[in-house]
Amino acid sequence: MLNASEELFAEENLEFWKRMSKPQREMVLNSATCVKYKKGESLHDGVNNCLGLVLVMEGRLRIFILSEEGKEVTLFRLNPSEACVLSASCILKNITFDVHIEAEKDSSVIIINPKAFENLCLENVYAENFSYKVITAHFSEVMWAMEQILFMSFEKRLAIFLIDQSSLDNSEYISMTHEEIANHMGSAREVVSRMLKYFQNEGIVELSRGDIKIIDKKKLRALAL
Amino acid sequence: MLNASEELFAEENLEFWKRMSKPQREMVLNSATCVKYKKGESLHDGVNNCLGLVLVMEGRLRIFILSEEGKEVTLFRLNPSEACVLSASCILKNITFDVHIEAEKDSSVIIINPKAFENLCLENVYAENFSYKVITAHFSEVMWAMEQILFMSFEKRLAIFLIDQSSLDNSEYISMTHEEIANHMGSAREVVSRMLKYFQNEGIVELSRGDIKIIDKKKLRALAL
Repeated sequence: MLNASEELFAEENLEFWKRMSKPQREMVLNSATCVKYKKGESLHDGVNNCLGLVLVMEGRLRIFILSEEGKEVTLFRLNPSEACVLSASCILKNITFDVHIEAEKDSSVIIINPKAFENLCLENVYAENFSYKVITAHFSEVMWAMEQILFMSFEKRLAIFLIDQSSLDNSEYISMTHEEIANHMGSAREVVSRMLKYFQNEGIVELSRGDIKIIDKKKLRALAL
Repeated sequence: MLNASEELFAEENLEFWKRMSKPQREMVLNSATCVKYKKGESLHDGVNNCLGLVLVMEGRLRIFILSEEGKEVTLFRLNPSEACVLSASCILKNITFDVHIEAEKDSSVIIINPKAFENLCLENVYAENFSYKVITAHFSEVMWAMEQILFMSFEKRLAIFLIDQSSLDNSEYISMTHEEIANHMGSAREVVSRMLKYFQNEGIVELSRGDIKIIDKKKLRALAL
């Protein structure tokens, strides 16, 4: 059950909300919850659970894939007002892959449970269409990530990653270990450490235990072009 | 304009066909054509054209991405009866990436032009839904390709590629150059040549000018596990 402000948030950010009949709205409201996750907590781990529709109110979620050996590749992130249905592959039959979702910051997330969302999609074509549009947009984001990984030099990718991370957190400090960065980029820790060391030698960043400080944003931006 | 057998083929393979009104059917029929492509010919090259809906009658199409340096990565293939709308990104606004499409064999392809297909999608929710379902299925195929490329050893990937190619063509001969295989796999020719040489030394394949003969399928299958 959602409280009044959560319901308003759902209405403003899920374009099918106003197209629901009264009984549909009641069904969805009764099976929706707002859940808080701590930074680093897992919402969804592939095959083992079906979460339903996810809408971020506060914080940030990271959607990634994971190899058998534990290698991670970040596909995209969800910021407040953004929704995702890839954790509802139990409903949408032609999604045949599994993603992992975790909170990248402390987050509040509205979740519509899969059974209610499935019933809604069967009855209400706007909800079904919304799901597919969200998936198509995420497909585009994944293609962008894939092109980056496959086609771009590692130097350029790391520069872009540091710029993005710094503007996401609105800070010149990036509080991540080399291991965490490697996981985001689908690379190895050694490769990240080597390149960061090179960036430091070029006077672009300053490395210290646990964080990276960007000291020459202009040079970093030039690498990202 | 399609002839009677082409129209029947479209009706059997496009699930929205029977849901069209008479005027919609007329509009689509008048703006559909069956086009023949020679092996290697390009149907679509990213930004520069908008093809509309593509349905394969005969042959095989390959959908791939291309880097600025000319590196190719195959995303998926389309066999007879399969449709694709990724070349209709002029219509579906949340597709923000470009793919290339070429005929991998001599092919006959039914194409519904983008303007007619756009009008149809606006009027007919079944056509719109069909597009999104096809896109979601292709998203799944792309995720599979991405996991292969990012997570799998090259030896295993090449073994799988040779097995797939041999069963697609129903032959133990694979008539491709090392360069072509490298393009399919998003790799470099040298890497493919080195690994094929290793496969030859292991008694798995026999290399000759212009083709590869699989001589120990059992060993090759073991590598692909």
